[in-house]
Amino acid sequence: MKALEEKICREGKVYPGNVLKVGSFLNHQIDVPFMQQIGEEFHRLFQDEKITKVLTIETSGIPIACMTAVCFNVPVLFAKKHQTKNLSDDCYCTEIMSYTHGNSYQARIEKQYLSKDDTVLIIDDFLANGCALVGLMDLIEQAGAKCVGCGIVIEKAFQDGGQKLREMGVRVESLARIIRMDPETGIEFID
Amino acid sequence: MKALEEKICREGKVYPGNVLKVGSFLNHQIDVPFMQQIGEEFHRLFQDEKITKVLTIETSGIPIACMTAVCFNVPVLFAKKHQTKNLSDDCYCTEIMSYTHGNSYQARIEKQYLSKDDTVLIIDDFLANGCALVGLMDLIEQAGAKCVGCGIVIEKAFQDGGQKLREMGVRVESLARIIRMDPETGIEFID
Repeated sequence: MKALEEKICREGKVYPGNVLKVGSFLNHQIDVPFMQQIGEEFHRLFQDEKITKVLTIETSGIPIACMTAVCFNVPVLFAKKHQTKNLSDDCYCTEIMSYTHGNSYQARIEKQYLSKDDTVLIIDDFLANGCALVGLMDLIEQAGAKCVGCGIVIEKAFQDGGQKLREMGVRVESLARIIRMDPETGIEFID
Repeated sequence: MKALEEKICREGKVYPGNVLKVGSFLNHQIDVPFMQQIGEEFHRLFQDEKITKVLTIETSGIPIACMTAVCFNVPVLFAKKHQTKNLSDDCYCTEIMSYTHGNSYQARIEKQYLSKDDTVLIIDDFLANGCALVGLMDLIEQAGAKCVGCGIVIEKAFQDGGQKLREMGVRVESLARIIRMDPETGIEFID
């Protein structure tokens, strides 16, 4: 998605250690009108699937999931990372490694909100090593629901998550795929 | 907002200790088409203000803030509760008490995303003791920005947050105000 690549180049900041900050529009401040365009693009890509629910994980996936779910006229469900009193005990639960934070955490969804009748589109902001997506697919499988694929805003294609998932037969649609990035030389995309 | 009160009565579950669970549409699964109506209602209420930014706090406020910001055609900014490597050190920071979880936490926004030129609408899912809103107003004040008020989906009007804020002169618009709730006798609203 050309407009997204241009926005990443204009507003994104690359730091050593393959860190890309896009807090101006994606995961701190949210450019909601632009997220509408992102949502419409995911709708265009997955419109032939009979999606009943959009699944994401807190926090940064939520705005994108909402702007996508509007186009499909379906609810969003987000997996919770943090223990909260508002969550019942009757949950599907999976363990997800976070390389960014050097730990692992439990992601949970209440069983009542996902069932074998659901056809699910997963949405997230970033794809790097793919651990979060594999965790979300595990939750979908536990519920006996169907996963039609993953809609990703930015794929770090120099990490192996995307390749791993595609080799597993998962449909992964990334709107921008970064093959190389460097604080000095900038950001390079592949199609 | 009548449709909201009806939805709370139909889908909400009251537990002892004044706990109201609305995970079916507000803070776990999100009824996005319904959140669109909520956003339109906040737009109707605040349309005369020249809002440049919608501010909320992770996590549950984010979907509502996004569906509201769409109507104003402005960005959302959400305060972060959790330490993350993606946040710069150059932040406005405030301490918020959480009675729900019996602790306090730091809420942060990066300084570059809020300035004295901003006119801000605060959006959140719940108002009980008002600590989160006071914290968000503190962040706005630190930035020298203007706060036009708070749009709340559900106010627990039997707690004193709403009264405290209104006495401080803050415009608080709550779409449903619960004056009494009980697992046996149900939920009672006031206008």
